[in-house]
Amino acid sequence: MYGPGDVRVEDVPDARIEAPTDAVVRVVRACVCGSDLHPYHSMGASAEGSTMGHEFIGVVEEVGSDVATIARGDFVIAPFAYFDNTCEFCRAGLTTSCVHGGFFSTAQAEAVRVPLADGTLVTAPVGEDSALLPSLLTLSDVLITGHHAAVRGQVRAGSSVTVIGDGAVGLLAVLSAKRLGAEQIVLMGRHQARTDLGREFGATDVVAERGEKGIAKVLELTGGRGTSAVLECVGHLPAYEQALAVVRAGGVISRVGVPQYDQGPVGFDLFGRNLTLTGGPGAQRSYIEELLPEVLDGRIEPGRVFDRTVGLDETPEGYRLMDERTALKVLVRP
Amino acid sequence: MYGPGDVRVEDVPDARIEAPTDAVVRVVRACVCGSDLHPYHSMGASAEGSTMGHEFIGVVEEVGSDVATIARGDFVIAPFAYFDNTCEFCRAGLTTSCVHGGFFSTAQAEAVRVPLADGTLVTAPVGEDSALLPSLLTLSDVLITGHHAAVRGQVRAGSSVTVIGDGAVGLLAVLSAKRLGAEQIVLMGRHQARTDLGREFGATDVVAERGEKGIAKVLELTGGRGTSAVLECVGHLPAYEQALAVVRAGGVISRVGVPQYDQGPVGFDLFGRNLTLTGGPGAQRSYIEELLPEVLDGRIEPGRVFDRTVGLDETPEGYRLMDERTALKVLVRP
Repeated sequence: MYGPGDVRVEDVPDARIEAPTDAVVRVVRACVCGSDLHPYHSMGASAEGSTMGHEFIGVVEEVGSDVATIARGDFVIAPFAYFDNTCEFCRAGLTTSCVHGGFFSTAQAEAVRVPLADGTLVTAPVGEDSALLPSLLTLSDVLITGHHAAVRGQVRAGSSVTVIGDGAVGLLAVLSAKRLGAEQIVLMGRHQARTDLGREFGATDVVAERGEKGIAKVLELTGGRGTSAVLECVGHLPAYEQALAVVRAGGVISRVGVPQYDQGPVGFDLFGRNLTLTGGPGAQRSYIEELLPEVLDGRIEPGRVFDRTVGLDETPEGYRLMDERTALKVLVRP
Repeated sequence: MYGPGDVRVEDVPDARIEAPTDAVVRVVRACVCGSDLHPYHSMGASAEGSTMGHEFIGVVEEVGSDVATIARGDFVIAPFAYFDNTCEFCRAGLTTSCVHGGFFSTAQAEAVRVPLADGTLVTAPVGEDSALLPSLLTLSDVLITGHHAAVRGQVRAGSSVTVIGDGAVGLLAVLSAKRLGAEQIVLMGRHQARTDLGREFGATDVVAERGEKGIAKVLELTGGRGTSAVLECVGHLPAYEQALAVVRAGGVISRVGVPQYDQGPVGFDLFGRNLTLTGGPGAQRSYIEELLPEVLDGRIEPGRVFDRTVGLDETPEGYRLMDERTALKVLVRP
């Protein structure tokens, strides 16, 4: 990506082992993320450009001499961050704060160098032709991110939840809230094909209105009180402000949309009603380990969020389709 | 209070029963709160003035016809908010969000009308001459507020905690964190008499430096990582910014200082490291019920925060002493 709207497919040096803890993974499926659209809209033009992509599943081609648990030929899921899985933060489950870790940014490609392969990669007992590939790919980001939103939102049996955003993460936050036992799930989104899928994932109510009208509608649906959890899956300031308006006193706003703002209401708006604001990047390895069995046995079908597939050469088209909301989420097939 | 620095003692109509759920309580002890200093600094000048005070203990003089659990002659503790203790928020423990509740603002007085007396007042088996009066009075606000900071900060056995602010709430947040099992408690404050009391309450480290130097010192004391909980007991924006700088990845900032700002850093500063921001008014009745036995048997001595006593007529002097930091916390004896 060289600037707003400017995505190019180019030859770069092959991914290769650089440290003994590395693996090289041939990409079987990658995709375009809603968060890739933020730089697609607003990055500064750059002569060097930035490599893109942080979601992929694939087959291990080569491992460094210190890699012990992953072998050539393994089918693997890579979360959007890499980590050693041994530091104090990893042991506490917070792999995105690994002291040796970082985030992937070269996954829209034929192959990826994976640092700290033992810590990062999770193997799956499937072949490259598995029908489960789309659902497995969601374990790389959008499903674990939606799950993180629900976990951090303290969603449990009987919870009332508002999900803001009908992108792939929002819809999988609905699925995650449902899976954790939420009783009422209000999905705020205005693209009917998406909110219909949200209903199939477990949304009990859909609010298509935005702004004041949308807020009034959620309050009407919740006895005037709002919901105990609000999962903010967009990242823009109005979505956060909407969350403040529909969360119940004592409730939790859990954000997984990457904030595109630095400053915002953080004073008495939160304090007066004892609200909790939480969330962040959710590439926790434990989430993949928890959710993978349910993907494998078909209990959940998060891969339904993919509604278009493009070849690697067509990746710029994939961005365009997602940017104009023609596609919900675009799978990239190298 | 008629404006910044302008506190007057005046005759007003006597407190009296206005609703059948009211009680009238003769004040035995009241006090001046750190939060009273916010309007003392910055309220707009007003011809009518505002009555002040939200912390008191006293003896019930009269009860309305619907009051069932409180009787004339009872010695009672009033939290700084009143509530019915039956609504959905009260049942969830969040009495400050009671749908029929509100906050006291007439406690620096001879007597107070207490709405919803059955829900609000907690009786204590002591006389008006008890040596425990100062500690009992902290159950009205500063102790339960410090406790709320620690509870919301998820402080538990082994936690590392930074407490920002050496006012009465900060010192009792230290006591509360210690009581809940915190292992390391770093108190940030620069008034040595206060931080010395903080050490007696359980602080393991004191950082007198402010700003960048103070932050560097806390990081040095915590292996460069910060603490898992930061209890923000001030309410000014720099204190919140300091909290952001000394909280550990994945940790909690728990605020009980009433925010004197609306906007602030709320984007990636919180999100990137999966921080949680929480807190608010903590007048939970359950806190009084939990802490009262330990005050009565002397296991905790929160009343040590009072270092001056004035008569009701001298209340303006009490504000002055606290404002100029000559007094830590001023007891008012009608």
